Amino acid sequence: MSELLAPAWAATGAGELVDDRALLTAMLATEVALAEAQAELGVIPEEAAKAIRAAAVPENLDPRAIAEGVRETANPVVAFVAGLTAAVDPAAAEYVHRGSTSQDILDTALMLLCRSTLDRVTRDLVATAGQLAGHVRAHRDTPMAGRTLTQHAVPVTFGLKAATWLHLVLDAVERVRRARAALPVSLGGAAGTLAAYEEYGPGSLELPDLVARKLGLAPQTLPWHGIRTPIADVASALLVTAGALGKIAADVLVLSRTEIGEVAEERAPGRGASSAMPQKHNPVFATLVATAARQLPPLAVVLFGSMAVEDERSSGGWHAEWQPLRDALRITAGAAANAARLAETLRVRPDAMAANLRLTRGAIVSERVNAVLAPALGKAAAKRLLAEATAEAERTGADLADLLDVDPGLLDPAAYTGLAGPLADRALARFEREEF
Amino acid sequence: MSELLAPAWAATGAGELVDDRALLTAMLATEVALAEAQAELGVIPEEAAKAIRAAAVPENLDPRAIAEGVRETANPVVAFVAGLTAAVDPAAAEYVHRGSTSQDILDTALMLLCRSTLDRVTRDLVATAGQLAGHVRAHRDTPMAGRTLTQHAVPVTFGLKAATWLHLVLDAVERVRRARAALPVSLGGAAGTLAAYEEYGPGSLELPDLVARKLGLAPQTLPWHGIRTPIADVASALLVTAGALGKIAADVLVLSRTEIGEVAEERAPGRGASSAMPQKHNPVFATLVATAARQLPPLAVVLFGSMAVEDERSSGGWHAEWQPLRDALRITAGAAANAARLAETLRVRPDAMAANLRLTRGAIVSERVNAVLAPALGKAAAKRLLAEATAEAERTGADLADLLDVDPGLLDPAAYTGLAGPLADRALARFEREEF
Amino acid sequence: MSELLAPAWAATGAGELVDDRALLTAMLATEVALAEAQAELGVIPEEAAKAIRAAAVPENLDPRAIAEGVRETANPVVAFVAGLTAAVDPAAAEYVHRGSTSQDILDTALMLLCRSTLDRVTRDLVATAGQLAGHVRAHRDTPMAGRTLTQHAVPVTFGLKAATWLHLVLDAVERVRRARAALPVSLGGAAGTLAAYEEYGPGSLELPDLVARKLGLAPQTLPWHGIRTPIADVASALLVTAGALGKIAADVLVLSRTEIGEVAEERAPGRGASSAMPQKHNPVFATLVATAARQLPPLAVVLFGSMAVEDERSSGGWHAEWQPLRDALRITAGAAANAARLAETLRVRPDAMAANLRLTRGAIVSERVNAVLAPALGKAAAKRLLAEATAEAERTGADLADLLDVDPGLLDPAAYTGLAGPLADRALARFEREEF
Amino acid sequence: MSELLAPAWAATGAGELVDDRALLTAMLATEVALAEAQAELGVIPEEAAKAIRAAAVPENLDPRAIAEGVRETANPVVAFVAGLTAAVDPAAAEYVHRGSTSQDILDTALMLLCRSTLDRVTRDLVATAGQLAGHVRAHRDTPMAGRTLTQHAVPVTFGLKAATWLHLVLDAVERVRRARAALPVSLGGAAGTLAAYEEYGPGSLELPDLVARKLGLAPQTLPWHGIRTPIADVASALLVTAGALGKIAADVLVLSRTEIGEVAEERAPGRGASSAMPQKHNPVFATLVATAARQLPPLAVVLFGSMAVEDERSSGGWHAEWQPLRDALRITAGAAANAARLAETLRVRPDAMAANLRLTRGAIVSERVNAVLAPALGKAAAKRLLAEATAEAERTGADLADLLDVDPGLLDPAAYTGLAGPLADRALARFEREEF
Repeated sequence: MSELLAPAWAATGAGELVDDRALLTAMLATEVALAEAQAELGVIPEEAAKAIRAAAVPENLDPRAIAEGVRETANPVVAFVAGLTAAVDPAAAEYVHRGSTSQDILDTALMLLCRSTLDRVTRDLVATAGQLAGHVRAHRDTPMAGRTLTQHAVPVTFGLKAATWLHLVLDAVERVRRARAALPVSLGGAAGTLAAYEEYGPGSLELPDLVARKLGLAPQTLPWHGIRTPIADVASALLVTAGALGKIAADVLVLSRTEIGEVAEERAPGRGASSAMPQKHNPVFATLVATAARQLPPLAVVLFGSMAVEDERSSGGWHAEWQPLRDALRITAGAAANAARLAETLRVRPDAMAANLRLTRGAIVSERVNAVLAPALGKAAAKRLLAEATAEAERTGADLADLLDVDPGLLDPAAYTGLAGPLADRALARFEREEF
Repeated sequence: MSELLAPAWAATGAGELVDDRALLTAMLATEVALAEAQAELGVIPEEAAKAIRAAAVPENLDPRAIAEGVRETANPVVAFVAGLTAAVDPAAAEYVHRGSTSQDILDTALMLLCRSTLDRVTRDLVATAGQLAGHVRAHRDTPMAGRTLTQHAVPVTFGLKAATWLHLVLDAVERVRRARAALPVSLGGAAGTLAAYEEYGPGSLELPDLVARKLGLAPQTLPWHGIRTPIADVASALLVTAGALGKIAADVLVLSRTEIGEVAEERAPGRGASSAMPQKHNPVFATLVATAARQLPPLAVVLFGSMAVEDERSSGGWHAEWQPLRDALRITAGAAANAARLAETLRVRPDAMAANLRLTRGAIVSERVNAVLAPALGKAAAKRLLAEATAEAERTGADLADLLDVDPGLLDPAAYTGLAGPLADRALARFEREEF
Repeated sequence: MSELLAPAWAATGAGELVDDRALLTAMLATEVALAEAQAELGVIPEEAAKAIRAAAVPENLDPRAIAEGVRETANPVVAFVAGLTAAVDPAAAEYVHRGSTSQDILDTALMLLCRSTLDRVTRDLVATAGQLAGHVRAHRDTPMAGRTLTQHAVPVTFGLKAATWLHLVLDAVERVRRARAALPVSLGGAAGTLAAYEEYGPGSLELPDLVARKLGLAPQTLPWHGIRTPIADVASALLVTAGALGKIAADVLVLSRTEIGEVAEERAPGRGASSAMPQKHNPVFATLVATAARQLPPLAVVLFGSMAVEDERSSGGWHAEWQPLRDALRITAGAAANAARLAETLRVRPDAMAANLRLTRGAIVSERVNAVLAPALGKAAAKRLLAEATAEAERTGADLADLLDVDPGLLDPAAYTGLAGPLADRALARFEREEF
Repeated sequence: MSELLAPAWAATGAGELVDDRALLTAMLATEVALAEAQAELGVIPEEAAKAIRAAAVPENLDPRAIAEGVRETANPVVAFVAGLTAAVDPAAAEYVHRGSTSQDILDTALMLLCRSTLDRVTRDLVATAGQLAGHVRAHRDTPMAGRTLTQHAVPVTFGLKAATWLHLVLDAVERVRRARAALPVSLGGAAGTLAAYEEYGPGSLELPDLVARKLGLAPQTLPWHGIRTPIADVASALLVTAGALGKIAADVLVLSRTEIGEVAEERAPGRGASSAMPQKHNPVFATLVATAARQLPPLAVVLFGSMAVEDERSSGGWHAEWQPLRDALRITAGAAANAARLAETLRVRPDAMAANLRLTRGAIVSERVNAVLAPALGKAAAKRLLAEATAEAERTGADLADLLDVDPGLLDPAAYTGLAGPLADRALARFEREEF
């Protein structure tokens, strides 16, 4: 379990993607692919490969014994191999894991977990994008207050805001797919020379490619025990994803505030309930995504920091990657699942947007008035005049149009949304260009 | 489980300190203490408190339902309270969780987990300190090469090195104890005014103190939903602990290198074994501690960063603390357990130290020769002369004493360990002053 | 300069506390104190110490040459010592830096910079606390909406909110003072044995204490080249400070929003101006403090992470501390300066608070109504009833009191602020107990 | 200056790439390009654009006034625009910065700084790669000990180790180039709608493209005030670069250790000198690169974390990016410059490699012996036998070949380097395929 303190991914299914069972399954798949590739190369008997495949089920392994092995040998593979070897037909036992080092198996298995997780993330990002595209279309020209440094700035449209979110999600999809396509097999032997593979029989230079093909991973150029770019690339993609979704959540949290009320997550029984307050309807999906976005960047410190480690295989650096990688995967997968729900359940309130646009009685369009007055008064004088008038409007509750004695139409927020529409169209066009 | 990718704490028992069962037990203890305190104040019936205590066993709760609740309400408490309420005698049901908000229960429960973990950490740090003190005593005057920027610098003693480690561990003990003593109860109600408690009956200003006493926690001055100093203080203590232990591990990893060989972890069957290489005897405990030390500082980003959150209770900031706090606790507890084993199993090789001291044929004492020659030659000229002589010694394999034509005794490394002995005694004295 | 991209501390004077001139001045002070202490111990001539003091002015040093020296020797001290030696009366030249290693001088100088910065931080925190205490007193009973997960929760008072901020600032003061009092001298010689000092003359075990007294620093127990707790302790204090101030800023940013408008920074010509929008009056000090709070936690990764480094002095770990420590100091000092201005210029709007409290037409007090109805209806039924009624109130714009047919007095937010007053008094009492 | 505490980039010229002068120059270039583009579109007079270009020299600006402006308005642009406007021919003054918001200018200017820095980084990475390729060629078949978890594992070649480094550097080049090519212009106006540009005259949808072309930046799809992927992409590239170079440094630091001595940085007068010890010859470039690699990952926390910010433009999130971006750029540029010098000055000692290979008297090849014995004895029995024999060899100093009574040729480390040669060739081939 352990989901009780994991709001970022609890009950999203993300946990199962990278839990111990998934890990052991991936490690077994790696040993099987290795054995079958070696059999293909004639280095081990065909029968041995079959026996290894037959034994390669998680039920044959004892997770507790493997956990104890972690403390004995600093990695789970030694005890895992012992467990698998014990489960295999004795005649095939000596062919298990032949020529490999622990890191070969674990790195390859982690790439398989990355693959399944990135696939899930992609699916949920695409769903999110689809929902957002719907919001862009529905609200292409719905005016709302643009806010900068917490204050009303100039009008925007909800279409443009949703387009911004959509653009970010498409950025994430792009980076996740690139990382997904590049996930390499890892096979090097004890110190990356493939020496033990070669000792047992020639052809080892092709062995990694063969294993990669069997597992559906990309080939490696060199063994990468000490070349951690694949981990860094996955980290980059996850960080962009969490950041992109975190932006959406941050905006929704602002717009959901009681005083603002421009969007809300759809009500559903129990959702967003408080243990204390009956009236509460908290923005739950936004909170879950926001919390994911806060947790991810620090994990990057370890994932990128572990590139700079010593020796053919390091003592501590490599080991430090495992848990943050697992966490980064499930947090991001959880964020994507929750973001899809957020986008789906988001209710937009154009009337609240309109009401808020009127709050400052015209001041939100003062940039425009400035542009109109500047040619006559000079830029500085116009800006000074408007600063004074808007301050007076705020103090007295008067309308800016009255104070300035200008045509009220000039101060219509809906008439000053600039190119929000065509810009929103661009994000939509990008979405529609993609083939999902 | 989930220990397979957690080398920092796998099989140390640290996981159990903060797992879901431990959490639920602590949450139940909090609800029970609250009810009993309210009964004592006459706010709820004595019988209700008894009924709540009777029902407060983890077996009455369904972790999966609570995990699903996390996704519904962004925290585990709403579903937890529903579960507890359902388990309680119906007559007492309405007294469960009375007046409280989710954060009260979860924060208090987390403080209880901090307490048990910090106690375990203290115990293991004290054990580590005891072992290290033994090394200081045994090797107070064992000379070895001091190394700076990876190069031999001047001689030190292993006693001083172990004293340095001991000093760090005592620093950690001090900070862990201070944090342990300050862990406060958390009780504020929906927005920190204690209003609902007070609504049900007077005396609520004393309620938190009463609950604190029942749970053995420190009192709170103010409700601290938005005052996260307690979390930051725990984080500081954990960070110093992991850093202190990480320093020991970093040194052991260097000194264990095949070419250096001045220390080694005791051999034991299977420990430090490789999946590939029969001769391998890896420094396992040092690796496990080193990997813990790498993982902890990034967690601090969230734990300190969550101080700066908005509102009476934040949307995402508070939630982001939970998993990093749990991780920081179990990683540090694992590091302390493994450090105790490291200190216990560390074997010291004075002969290797002596051999390494001779490696540079005198150059390691050139600072001393410089001090002797400088008064006669001037500081700069002496340093230049020695730089040349040591370079020649390195190039030709000659002895520095011969090249400089000085008394070989001047170049005896064992005679240039300065005040290493008295300094080591200071760390020992500090250790002996402590009452454990 | 370099303040243009440093909003956290630009134009606060924090930069000067730790700039190159301040650093060189502190390094010179360290060399002078060392020489004078050695003279006192009779290890170097009195005249030499005088000559060193006479030459120890920053103008005698060439910062560019020292910067080049950083690239030659990986630290600024070697070239600094060369510069100082060249400036000293030739007869005294050989007594400069005698027995010391680079890290002695740089660590001690950094402790001096920590001292002056922590003093400035304390001063500004105390000023901030004074201002906040004024707000607590003035608004002890001013009701406002308490907000949790962005939504109105139950009423609080602005007095309690300001008390929360005050409490945080006092937490910070406490930790900054503790760190300030513990800043130790650093003196160990090449590898921490004090050997070279001792070679030049006896008494070196007392030398560090003597230097510490002259510089007003705390003594060291052991040389701490490899015991980085002093840096970690400073980091902890800075992190708590930035987090505490960041919480205030986060709240102010929310409460300043155009739609909420419960507080605002006082207007002043140019302050908070936009380059584009004449009406803009951005919350500047809050933004500057918020940006500081975002930047600090990541710096902790290096500062705590550098505890776990190898050897008597490390290659890269020690060096990595310098810039993050400098940054953490000036960012925190900037934050404290800006927080003092924020507290000073904060304008509170009780009318806006009252208006916002009315926004939900009673729902903000539904917890109280629940407490009243629960005994009659049962907890669950009461909560369900209220959830429905508040939803209807929101949908229809009706008053909750009408819908429930209860005494409107029951729904008066000002009558449901619980113990906010007495709790605020506690923070005030803590403030008043302190002697500043 | 401020280089004294910046070992990562001191005296490399990296500081100048992003200092205040470079920043102001880039901001001026942005304003000029904007004005010229607007003139081209007929929105402002041609003469005005000329006047703006004429005034756009850093000497016309007062950095101190701009720094003070940062504290007034939370960004340097407002005061910068005032300064530029004052310097411009009065007739053109009102055309300065027309339609723009502060973030447009600052973001675009930062992209220009990214460009020049990434160009410098690429140049130094290519130089590093060239040097490393030389090492690969020269030492393709030089055997040395492979080390894992600090212990001798199996033999490798220095050629393969250098190929690993080369591969990492090429990974970095690839990512830096991709980021370099994608750096976009930033132009959105107050809230990203381009409204003010459009207010002054039509055609604004093309304006950003026109400005991008003038500045040599990539176009933007949408204004990206709230879409921080460009910053994240630069961060990813810098992180991979620092990590790649940090790996090289970490290895060099190990191999340079006094006891190992397999590589050394070339001696040069003063380089690597100690302030205390005449014999010292520290690995300076490796230390400088290592310290850079430690400092970079934490900066990523802010750079990625700032993706998740609220509103059209955020209060604190955007501002927090500036200094970490500047730091990340100059630290990486410094690392690349120092890595190029490291690769250039690296001296390789095949004799020391050979001597170290003999240290364990055959045990380093026990994996091979295992492969030979396993078919006869069974895998487990062979491994056990070898574990015992290597332990005995270590204890007694005997040769493994004697203990096992096998052909000494079987234990020749040079004969067990597997496919190190062909693998090294692959990295060389990748290098040679690139066009630099």
